[in-house]
Amino acid sequence: MKKIFRIPLCIILFSLAYLTANATDGHELWLRSVKPNPVKIVAASKSNAVAIAVKELEQGWTGQSGATVTLSLVKDAALKGDGFRITQTSIEAKTGQGLLYGAYELLRRQQTGQAVSGVSNPSYNLRILNHWDNLNGSIERGYAGESIFWRKGDSAFTVTDADKQLWQEYARANTSIGINGAVLNNVNASPQMLSTQYLQRVKAIADVLRPYGIKTYLSINFATPIKLGNLPTADPLDKKVIAWWKAKADEIYKLVPDFGGFLVKANSEGQPGPQDYGRTHAQGANMLADILKKHNGIIMWRAFVYNASEKDRAKQAYGEFMPLDGKFSDNVIIQVKNGPIDFQPREPFSPLFGATKKTPLMPELQITQEYLGHSYQLAFLATMWEEFLKSDTWQEGKNSTVARVTDGSVFNQKYTAIAGVANVGLDANWCGHHFAQANWYAFGRQAWNNTMPAADVANEWVKLTFLPSDGETAKGWEDNFLKPVQQMMLDSREAVVNYSMPLGLHHIFSAHEHYGPGPWYAPARVRKDWTPPYYHQAEAGGIGFNRTATGSNAVSQYHEPLASEFASVEKCPEKFLLYFHHLPWDFKLKNGRELWDELCYRYQDGLDEVRNFQKTWDKVAPYVDAQRFTEVQTKLQRQCRDAQFYKDGCLLYFQQFSKRPIPYDIERPVNTLEYYEKTDPLTMQEVVKQ
Amino acid sequence: MKKIFRIPLCIILFSLAYLTANATDGHELWLRSVKPNPVKIVAASKSNAVAIAVKELEQGWTGQSGATVTLSLVKDAALKGDGFRITQTSIEAKTGQGLLYGAYELLRRQQTGQAVSGVSNPSYNLRILNHWDNLNGSIERGYAGESIFWRKGDSAFTVTDADKQLWQEYARANTSIGINGAVLNNVNASPQMLSTQYLQRVKAIADVLRPYGIKTYLSINFATPIKLGNLPTADPLDKKVIAWWKAKADEIYKLVPDFGGFLVKANSEGQPGPQDYGRTHAQGANMLADILKKHNGIIMWRAFVYNASEKDRAKQAYGEFMPLDGKFSDNVIIQVKNGPIDFQPREPFSPLFGATKKTPLMPELQITQEYLGHSYQLAFLATMWEEFLKSDTWQEGKNSTVARVTDGSVFNQKYTAIAGVANVGLDANWCGHHFAQANWYAFGRQAWNNTMPAADVANEWVKLTFLPSDGETAKGWEDNFLKPVQQMMLDSREAVVNYSMPLGLHHIFSAHEHYGPGPWYAPARVRKDWTPPYYHQAEAGGIGFNRTATGSNAVSQYHEPLASEFASVEKCPEKFLLYFHHLPWDFKLKNGRELWDELCYRYQDGLDEVRNFQKTWDKVAPYVDAQRFTEVQTKLQRQCRDAQFYKDGCLLYFQQFSKRPIPYDIERPVNTLEYYEKTDPLTMQEVVKQ
Repeated sequence: MKKIFRIPLCIILFSLAYLTANATDGHELWLRSVKPNPVKIVAASKSNAVAIAVKELEQGWTGQSGATVTLSLVKDAALKGDGFRITQTSIEAKTGQGLLYGAYELLRRQQTGQAVSGVSNPSYNLRILNHWDNLNGSIERGYAGESIFWRKGDSAFTVTDADKQLWQEYARANTSIGINGAVLNNVNASPQMLSTQYLQRVKAIADVLRPYGIKTYLSINFATPIKLGNLPTADPLDKKVIAWWKAKADEIYKLVPDFGGFLVKANSEGQPGPQDYGRTHAQGANMLADILKKHNGIIMWRAFVYNASEKDRAKQAYGEFMPLDGKFSDNVIIQVKNGPIDFQPREPFSPLFGATKKTPLMPELQITQEYLGHSYQLAFLATMWEEFLKSDTWQEGKNSTVARVTDGSVFNQKYTAIAGVANVGLDANWCGHHFAQANWYAFGRQAWNNTMPAADVANEWVKLTFLPSDGETAKGWEDNFLKPVQQMMLDSREAVVNYSMPLGLHHIFSAHEHYGPGPWYAPARVRKDWTPPYYHQAEAGGIGFNRTATGSNAVSQYHEPLASEFASVEKCPEKFLLYFHHLPWDFKLKNGRELWDELCYRYQDGLDEVRNFQKTWDKVAPYVDAQRFTEVQTKLQRQCRDAQFYKDGCLLYFQQFSKRPIPYDIERPVNTLEYYEKTDPLTMQEVVKQ
Repeated sequence: MKKIFRIPLCIILFSLAYLTANATDGHELWLRSVKPNPVKIVAASKSNAVAIAVKELEQGWTGQSGATVTLSLVKDAALKGDGFRITQTSIEAKTGQGLLYGAYELLRRQQTGQAVSGVSNPSYNLRILNHWDNLNGSIERGYAGESIFWRKGDSAFTVTDADKQLWQEYARANTSIGINGAVLNNVNASPQMLSTQYLQRVKAIADVLRPYGIKTYLSINFATPIKLGNLPTADPLDKKVIAWWKAKADEIYKLVPDFGGFLVKANSEGQPGPQDYGRTHAQGANMLADILKKHNGIIMWRAFVYNASEKDRAKQAYGEFMPLDGKFSDNVIIQVKNGPIDFQPREPFSPLFGATKKTPLMPELQITQEYLGHSYQLAFLATMWEEFLKSDTWQEGKNSTVARVTDGSVFNQKYTAIAGVANVGLDANWCGHHFAQANWYAFGRQAWNNTMPAADVANEWVKLTFLPSDGETAKGWEDNFLKPVQQMMLDSREAVVNYSMPLGLHHIFSAHEHYGPGPWYAPARVRKDWTPPYYHQAEAGGIGFNRTATGSNAVSQYHEPLASEFASVEKCPEKFLLYFHHLPWDFKLKNGRELWDELCYRYQDGLDEVRNFQKTWDKVAPYVDAQRFTEVQTKLQRQCRDAQFYKDGCLLYFQQFSKRPIPYDIERPVNTLEYYEKTDPLTMQEVVKQ
């Protein structure tokens, strides 16, 4: 093995990086070009997917020089959907698309040094990215530049070669990790989405995505028949409305014959929906589903609903959807966020996953880091998703994990699906933060295999993204780069939880931007369930949201024995303690500490962890190119500053109620509560009153 | 012993202090009122000083009830100047003023629980505060509000009862710690100081200070004969000029018969002086001294001179004054700042202290914290002054300490004196920071006894300032308050050195305000010796100012064996290393670390020490009143923030040259160098370009 790092220690710099590896902007993602060995590919099928598989193998083969690899379509009961079987020299699948997935897997295993053999089947049929992209090019909760699909101004409907190249790169990246669908626009959808002009652009995008096996979907605005069709109503039982949707579906399928279907956010956060006309979610969804059925299209109907009148937001989706269980057409699938609240750094799973028996559910995960530091903070989400997917709902007895109740293992479903809200934008590195790429990667990998451990995902991703691309393993790379960086990733989500909302606290972020702490935010004019005090309930007597029988009784929405476990202050996992319980400041934790003290230690731990990430990253400088090193280093620096902002702001705020000292082995706050309340951590300027 | 603290732990707050002791604004200083016991005072003399002594004893006596204390004027060879001998029941002195000092000492010993007996003589005859107060009420380098002596506007010449009361409180505080003189105005003096209108106000002040034994002095502008007297010159050899000064002196002494004399800053930083007319400092000083002699007045002539042309500012005072040694009249005393540069947190002593043999020198210390954090930071200066006074100059062989060569022990001097630049202003607590009072106190105590250890000063001051005033010792007060607070004070100056300019670095502060780091400040238009790079000399090859024979050879101004010790890179104390040497970044320190690394650790140590001060202070909350607790806590919080600003700013700046990583067990910088360079740490706003 060649030594490729010879830098004397004295020129390893903290902020000026003289490094051997070439600088890279990260645009290649985990698909960095390699120096391939000659290989002979034998493929019976000539589909688009297979043609791409052949090309990828020829360009990426690092196995035995001169080897022959055979790609075969087979009948094999061990293979499901687009699953495949690979060996060192063969790929078998039931579909051309399966062969393509097999090719990417073969190359990945070569590059990561894993054993190359075995069967791999997808956990879900549909593995879909949700782009919250607006037609003007902006992205709701997007932190990596403008949309790759839409742009504003005069050129909004021009499709350039550069567009097509970018969309192709996007499709390739998705397919390499098993994603097979993309919703191209924001769930808060513009009626204009379905205008002929925009549909032309949808066709252009779909034409680029199709060869890679990525189906195109659109979010729709339920009132589109009014806004775009000039009808007086959007009542789903109105014949003219139904006719309008039929015609529109025909128009879409003419342009995009394999169009996937609609994603619908209805009667949620001000969006129109069937309830506006006295109809149920089921009536609204079924109207659309019945129209799409003949096109093999589906309706993904979001369960993210809550209104200002209800006492506990966490209970509402269950309350609205359980009565409809069994009332949905078989090409409707209900899309449910992982937690009952809203993509928090930690929540228990939504109780719907343990409740509906006749209605298929698809988990909605958020890849973009709305509540986990945008693209400023390093937070690897595979650990969070692993925790979620492994959660046992007890729906049909033990081992009714979220993974199994959604992937068809427990219930017989026509469609199984999983969605992730994308973190992709026009930034050179796609995701804003180099490590945010790992979340895109992780979503694909865990959507394909919903029991894949986060540690394996991190291991693969680090190797593919950072291993020197000449195929040589740098001396000490595994010990000095892979292991510490992988560990940093695996620790990162818990760090965010600790410095932002430990012990079951939730939704205490600053208003609007959801960046930085805002436990104090509660203007009188704002609806209560949009203000943090609604969630943390801090007062002189204690802190936390009582969701037991003496409170909102949200625990009752969980299956036994979970309901009793969550309801019991002794048995409730401490990570969910203040989610389910309102407890006095001197409540004794299992480690003997009182609640207030433990809260302080958790916040400090979070900050200390980020400081350690900074050190970890600085130490690996010799093993990474200058550009990525510096960009990540700069973001970690900011993360550390902001972790301190969280810790100090939250502790000073809660201390007003706890009236207890911060334990003396914890760092004192750097600023006053007044400072934190008036400073916007996004800009470090004074908060702009909204 | 009564328990006086009964607060349950649960209401001991970090930021909201519910505390038993009454809130206090600190205005009483170390002279807090007590509940006295009856005492009979027998005093032969009836002087003003003795009358005050009697009153103080009656109001402050906490000794045996009904005791008789006898105040006697005696002849006793063991007593010098205003020295005294005290026992439990007697005070003896040669002067009434000595009896007054004895009374304060007796009361102090009672309150601090020290043995009450023994002789105490002042180290210096003249123990003088220099007020850098301008006639418009502002104070140069003052951080505790406006001047207590001067005010601007229509009422500038009105003397109110409130003025007199404040001046009396000021006089009492000074006398209680042995100070016996005050220069009422800035050394950068206005010619208007000597106008008849202002002299009337001087008389009013002097009349209030006199009973306490405080002599009044004034700073003069050497060009006053031109500016105020309308003469064409201020040449000290010009007869009209001399006549003008004579008349002015007569005017002054008519108003203030015991006027102390003039303090003169001449030919320094743009001030006029005898050199403007081709005369020497000695000619200028002697002209004035000869006029004041018949009035028993003195001239304090400052040696703080340097000009932009000379290569090493540290050498200039020596260069200008050594040729004049022996040429000054016997009522001239040369006032020399402790270090050769300018009141830095650490400098070696000025070489003049080890050089002049025929000219008496008086040390000038700076009580106000120009370079040690203004009134925002806790920095107890007695440790710095102890280090300075103990420094051995080797002037007349071993044990020629600065203390001994200035207090008459080594040389036979007509006058011995010491000056401190005051930190007093109109703030309720006089000094801005409650702990800055300790520096006023320390100056007085060490001026009286120039071998008094800083630890003793701190011990006394903490007891007098914070011990519950009913005379009961709070349970655990010594262990839980006195000891940790005293230790914090003793560690505080070294903490400032570490986080601002360790290892002999100096004058790397931000321009103008001298608050926060400014190692980068070097606009082309500014004279080099007013920019930090002149002092730190950082470049790729190393850092530090070479003052050895291969550099400026400033070491040669020190007496052997000091000159050789400082010149030797092995023998030079590491605290002065970069003051005397320019060394490569990998220079090995005695602890085995390389210079760059040690610099990093020192900065981090400084920051960590301040964090510990915060914890120390928070822990003592039960033992201190709410107001002082919160005010000190708030200042410590800011000090911590600013220590981090220093550490990060300096390390990132120097790292540009060292091109080395910050050791991985040290916290990463919170912001970028660019941020620190453009942010004013006083305001945390963008730097205003000056």
